[in-house]
Amino acid sequence: MKKIGILLSGCGVMDGSEIHEAVLTLLAIDVAGAQAVCIAPDISQHHVINHVTGEEMKDETRNVLVESARIARGDVKNLKDINSLGLDALILPGGFGAAKNLSDYAFKGAEFTVLPEVADAVRSFYDAKKPLGFICISPVIAAKVLGKNVEVTIGTDSQSATNIEAVGAKHVNCQVYNIHASNDGKVVSTPAYMLGPTIKDVAKGIEKLVNAVIALA
Amino acid sequence: MKKIGILLSGCGVMDGSEIHEAVLTLLAIDVAGAQAVCIAPDISQHHVINHVTGEEMKDETRNVLVESARIARGDVKNLKDINSLGLDALILPGGFGAAKNLSDYAFKGAEFTVLPEVADAVRSFYDAKKPLGFICISPVIAAKVLGKNVEVTIGTDSQSATNIEAVGAKHVNCQVYNIHASNDGKVVSTPAYMLGPTIKDVAKGIEKLVNAVIALA
Repeated sequence: MKKIGILLSGCGVMDGSEIHEAVLTLLAIDVAGAQAVCIAPDISQHHVINHVTGEEMKDETRNVLVESARIARGDVKNLKDINSLGLDALILPGGFGAAKNLSDYAFKGAEFTVLPEVADAVRSFYDAKKPLGFICISPVIAAKVLGKNVEVTIGTDSQSATNIEAVGAKHVNCQVYNIHASNDGKVVSTPAYMLGPTIKDVAKGIEKLVNAVIALA
Repeated sequence: MKKIGILLSGCGVMDGSEIHEAVLTLLAIDVAGAQAVCIAPDISQHHVINHVTGEEMKDETRNVLVESARIARGDVKNLKDINSLGLDALILPGGFGAAKNLSDYAFKGAEFTVLPEVADAVRSFYDAKKPLGFICISPVIAAKVLGKNVEVTIGTDSQSATNIEAVGAKHVNCQVYNIHASNDGKVVSTPAYMLGPTIKDVAKGIEKLVNAVIALA
């Protein structure tokens, strides 16, 4: 049975992993007959957002690994141990956690940096020719780490292309129900909630992405 | 378009809504062409559980409505306003939140009580012949509020039957991929993660439950 890592970044679209995208990834992996392994870094969240008001809860601090465990029903591994997990592929769901906790793209735009242990994981899977899947906003991490030959999706507008190319990779327009497999490396991506609008549309793209990643593994 | 309420109880299986069950309910409603409306009570959680260790985080307090908004991507209504939402049906996902926040079943067993505004909502939908769906552990709420003529599921073992009948309703054995529609009232239930074991099994039962609830609405 192939083992597919899911790199989480918290629990909630505004400050962590986009919950629907993460759960739809878990579902598609299980339906495909592979094993999902949830992983997260043991770091503090950048901040905590009240998802009703959209405002920061300034008195709260939460840990990315601990909050990610909510999506994983308790079974989440520490990202620092990723090399011991025997993974065949790695998928990064979206949500602002990818741009606030796994990187600082949400705050710095094209001049952003990726958390070193995340960059190391992405680079090592790429170099080992193990497939990588990037959902929603997380392709900015692929763009930053893997650079100019990699093709990734964000959405269908020219601003998306501008943003990805400013980071140093190639942007490919893609509909929500579709995926793009890069000609360079085993890198697959889908726009998910960058386009939406609703969960059934997002589910189609994620199911295709998971099946493509598993087929490449 | 039929409007289907989803009554959430927080965000995470150990102290709130079971996230997979809630997201799979949202997915099935959208796929069926109905509109999902997330709802939660504006109350404090009973407690906060670290989902890595399973231990209580004694210094933390969280609000059920605010945490439920993570699953709802921000769009969650206050349960006190449920009568103004024009709902055609109501579904309760599981997770310990149903037994810790919406009721105190987790602490008191058969002698438990249901949060009055939850009991009022369940009773008013039942009396109006609007369908109700109960997932996982939440059928104990149907049993307590609706009583001896209602048939609900928990799982397949004799202890489940004993627990439900101690509360005052009838238990019907049911597999995870199936549902049971009560002969009394429009009450549909499915075991979900009471049985599992994995998300693909849970998804089958929830999809059937959502389709049955929508057909009855």
